[in-house]
Amino acid sequence: MQLYDIKGPEDIKKLTIPQLMDLAQEIRSFLIESISKTGGHLSSNLGVVELTLAMHYVFDSPKDKFLFDVGHQSYTHKILTGRANRFATLRQKDGLSGFQKRNESEHDPWESGHSSTTLSGALGMAIARDYRKEKYEVLALIGDGALMSGMSMEALNDIGSKQKKVIIVFNDNNMSISKNIGGIEERITNVRSSKFYRTLKKDVKGGLSKKSVGESILTGMVAIRDRLKSEMVHGGFFQEFNIDYLGPVDGHNLKELIQTFETAKQHNGPIVIHAITKKGKGFSFAEKDQVGKWHGVPPFNMYSGEFYQKSPTNEKSWSEVISTTLMDLSKQNENIVAITPAMANGSKLLEFQKQFPDRFFDTGIAEQHTVTMACGMALSGLQPFVSIYSSFLQRAYDQMNHDLGRMDLPVVIGIDRAGLVGDDGETHQGIYDIAMLRNIPNLILSQPKDAKEAQDLLYTAFESKQPFCLRYPRGNVKYKKKESYTRIPIGSWTKLQIGEKPKSIIISYGPDVDRIVHSAKENGNECIVVNARFFKPLDEEMLDYLFNTQLPMHIFETDCKIGSLSSAILEYKNKRDQDVQILGIEDHFVTHGSIRSLRIQEHIDLASLFKEIEQDE
Amino acid sequence: MQLYDIKGPEDIKKLTIPQLMDLAQEIRSFLIESISKTGGHLSSNLGVVELTLAMHYVFDSPKDKFLFDVGHQSYTHKILTGRANRFATLRQKDGLSGFQKRNESEHDPWESGHSSTTLSGALGMAIARDYRKEKYEVLALIGDGALMSGMSMEALNDIGSKQKKVIIVFNDNNMSISKNIGGIEERITNVRSSKFYRTLKKDVKGGLSKKSVGESILTGMVAIRDRLKSEMVHGGFFQEFNIDYLGPVDGHNLKELIQTFETAKQHNGPIVIHAITKKGKGFSFAEKDQVGKWHGVPPFNMYSGEFYQKSPTNEKSWSEVISTTLMDLSKQNENIVAITPAMANGSKLLEFQKQFPDRFFDTGIAEQHTVTMACGMALSGLQPFVSIYSSFLQRAYDQMNHDLGRMDLPVVIGIDRAGLVGDDGETHQGIYDIAMLRNIPNLILSQPKDAKEAQDLLYTAFESKQPFCLRYPRGNVKYKKKESYTRIPIGSWTKLQIGEKPKSIIISYGPDVDRIVHSAKENGNECIVVNARFFKPLDEEMLDYLFNTQLPMHIFETDCKIGSLSSAILEYKNKRDQDVQILGIEDHFVTHGSIRSLRIQEHIDLASLFKEIEQDE
Repeated sequence: MQLYDIKGPEDIKKLTIPQLMDLAQEIRSFLIESISKTGGHLSSNLGVVELTLAMHYVFDSPKDKFLFDVGHQSYTHKILTGRANRFATLRQKDGLSGFQKRNESEHDPWESGHSSTTLSGALGMAIARDYRKEKYEVLALIGDGALMSGMSMEALNDIGSKQKKVIIVFNDNNMSISKNIGGIEERITNVRSSKFYRTLKKDVKGGLSKKSVGESILTGMVAIRDRLKSEMVHGGFFQEFNIDYLGPVDGHNLKELIQTFETAKQHNGPIVIHAITKKGKGFSFAEKDQVGKWHGVPPFNMYSGEFYQKSPTNEKSWSEVISTTLMDLSKQNENIVAITPAMANGSKLLEFQKQFPDRFFDTGIAEQHTVTMACGMALSGLQPFVSIYSSFLQRAYDQMNHDLGRMDLPVVIGIDRAGLVGDDGETHQGIYDIAMLRNIPNLILSQPKDAKEAQDLLYTAFESKQPFCLRYPRGNVKYKKKESYTRIPIGSWTKLQIGEKPKSIIISYGPDVDRIVHSAKENGNECIVVNARFFKPLDEEMLDYLFNTQLPMHIFETDCKIGSLSSAILEYKNKRDQDVQILGIEDHFVTHGSIRSLRIQEHIDLASLFKEIEQDE
Repeated sequence: MQLYDIKGPEDIKKLTIPQLMDLAQEIRSFLIESISKTGGHLSSNLGVVELTLAMHYVFDSPKDKFLFDVGHQSYTHKILTGRANRFATLRQKDGLSGFQKRNESEHDPWESGHSSTTLSGALGMAIARDYRKEKYEVLALIGDGALMSGMSMEALNDIGSKQKKVIIVFNDNNMSISKNIGGIEERITNVRSSKFYRTLKKDVKGGLSKKSVGESILTGMVAIRDRLKSEMVHGGFFQEFNIDYLGPVDGHNLKELIQTFETAKQHNGPIVIHAITKKGKGFSFAEKDQVGKWHGVPPFNMYSGEFYQKSPTNEKSWSEVISTTLMDLSKQNENIVAITPAMANGSKLLEFQKQFPDRFFDTGIAEQHTVTMACGMALSGLQPFVSIYSSFLQRAYDQMNHDLGRMDLPVVIGIDRAGLVGDDGETHQGIYDIAMLRNIPNLILSQPKDAKEAQDLLYTAFESKQPFCLRYPRGNVKYKKKESYTRIPIGSWTKLQIGEKPKSIIISYGPDVDRIVHSAKENGNECIVVNARFFKPLDEEMLDYLFNTQLPMHIFETDCKIGSLSSAILEYKNKRDQDVQILGIEDHFVTHGSIRSLRIQEHIDLASLFKEIEQDE
């Protein structure tokens, strides 16, 4: 069967199990070859080939809804739903998305990119289906890392309570991105090998192999359910949430998977199918990977396993510049510890972990917990460095506000992958953090223009003993280790005048600053280029100077316009020029008291307003 | 013992159990009398009197750290740490806070207000303690509702993994705020009555009562631990997270509690003490409460149980205006459903639940899950209304962005308690939502000025089929049911001119608009008062008109200044006047592609910048 010929899942429903097994191998080869050229998510997709085949074999997409958590493991699903011929365009502009995408196919009823949203989405769909008296199945495929994130557990709890029929396909590969962290995982591993589970597994298979589909399965089901009820009452994690459980099954055994899905189809109420899979299955380099190196990959040589993307020797990734500096600072300051929510490899913290094993903490996919745990550490004398990707930090807005900002604690947040990230698209563009965080009192927000400034800013962050956010983009930067660190005055910008008589002011930040300087010199533009290395607080003195020059001012920002740096500058400009009079709550937390007393305290009472108005001519 | 005489926990350590029991009754009477005058959190505090006494009896605060989750149940703790004499000032300006507060007492090592942060904070402290080789206990008291929130489960998972000694005091009253929702709760109830637990309980008591404290307890502990290991392997929710468990104990039995805490003190590694308490214990009105009426209360008559705070008959709370309208709209539109994360009473949705039981969904304290579940519903044909308090919506920034905004779905978010809320202080002021949400593409953000507009805006929200946020404050408003609804053009503001020759423009929103009109008329201020009922999109046409009048413009906003309405207006003013040239990412989601190609697509490439600069003189 040619993969390009597959128009939709109906094409595979007539295949025999051996034919499906051949198809699985074909898909695997296709994935390896295709991703070796375009880059993309490799290991997770190799792990779910049979799972996806079995889902499409037993269920009827698009009538039945297939939700892939995160969505980066939906490549086989894309192949089976007629999209094989678009894989050469994977993650390129106007090309195939690396995730499920509603506008790509009717077989994609859900979209994600961030982890752990799928169970909530699936429950919502199941509630709607039952309320509208419609008939279809909702399946959510979710990995072990994503399952252990708080949002998923909230959903599990609610699914168990509402008892709606959702089929949770638990893809357990014992490693999500980096090696999983967490108590549950150890428990699942124990449970997996327990006698009861082995017995149950035999039952499921027995009940199905002897009889054909139809009523006979239902009879088998009843037996299994009775067994579940009687013996599994205290039987496992899912049962604690009041969700029935089938498994564990071999996630690469198509026959076993198909039988189990058939059972799940007949089941009433929510049910989990626990499938054990091997991440990277069929590609030896990826199978051996323990740290997530083969999770998301650039183009590579499929025979040698070498990545084609090589950095020049005088460059490091921004993540590495930060982590290298962090290790250096940690030698001098024993209160520094490093925390990552499941991103040890991506955030380049593996070397830190090796050098400082008792000062390194992986918290799993748990951004909320991570930020607040760092607050607890800071209250007890440590100076935590928390590394989180910009778009994932969105999960911790409340913790940044309610815990970190409000308690005003010495925690350094490294906001990795800030700005556009490219290939991963909408869900991963790290362009909202400035706007999202700027309204939180007490936070310092900064971004270095180069590796030298990055080293000094990180040093400054720890010295400041304040909540300090340091953002840095994806990609590489020229790096040379600094001999000693310089404390940068908080809120200070720098400027460079090009030419004798500047005609423009350009304010920017991050690596664009030097690019702009370079281009301006090359183009012969006479201008003042400003490095706005702090988004909060602003360099008001420099802004005064700049506004006083009366030169045209250009702000070049590479993040969302609304609420970000340009907004901050406009707010300051208005405060300075008093174009518009604004009464509102200043940049601090407001204590308790009656609303009336607080409004007077904050000068947002009508008396304050009318006093201001009296001055109008 | 006079409560006012208690200087610190050392004063109660010499008491006998009967004396402690007397003290518990005294505290209870004091709480009821004191809160009946000031208002405050009643039920939760009555529930934990003995628990708190036992904690202070066995452990040594402030050396040992006591963290109260949410913190609204810390009143007994405040009494025992020398703060009884300040209860008359509870929640008043410069008075005693309703939560733990570091600047109030060295016995408050943690601060919260939002639920479910405490386990993360406690783990952070325990890690810091062990790393710094210090010796103290960290205790986190947490209720069943808060425990089932995602953030807590992330922390449980990590605590189980890291095996740091944290004592989790699980205050199980089977009702957090409103009646608990969730699969786990049913499981806990089952487990509670199971034979094994009863046996275990006897063991704990047996092991302790026969022997005195010290080494003998350790022997008892070993026996209990062995039993835990062998029999509790699949024994319960906490065990699934790899956390040892003691319980359930009667949370009002001081002797039993003290014994159990002594056991926990000797234990290595994390441990849960499961205490069953009665919310509202000792005050019959509160004991009978099933919906959370006695959770947070205004002043009341302690004999009749009547609240003194009465609304005039022509007024309703804003929450009730919204829920009443919602019920009316739901009669006409059967796709409308209502969702609340554990706030059915506070959000005034109990009547909706009664009228539309199959269209009402309580999701528990789970804001993240709630918003995304609503997205799933919307994708399957429903039009969900989600009611969330402004400050709790902070938990769902990512879901508002990644799920709701990005998928652009017809979900209406009712943002309750928007603006200053007063008594509850820093953590509950709903002043960040506009700034937090304004940067999210596709969202509509609005606030009605009165109940009439509220009804029309809610109607408009459902008609729009867009992600629509409708915020409304705490407190009451004059209400009259509308006969028919009017669709309000999205982004339209209204204005009212007072006097012949206006000298000022005042832009405001919400109930302040009419107050300003009223005051201006009374004061004889000639002005134009603008009702900015949409924060996004803005009424650009009206803003053009207003700027063209050249009149002094005043923005009166009752939320955080940074990033909110005034910021939006300044952004528009700048766009109009082109004072500062801004390149940045416009208000839409950015798809996948190489960073280079996306920068060109978004006009944030250097060529676009220099093209702009060429025009400067």
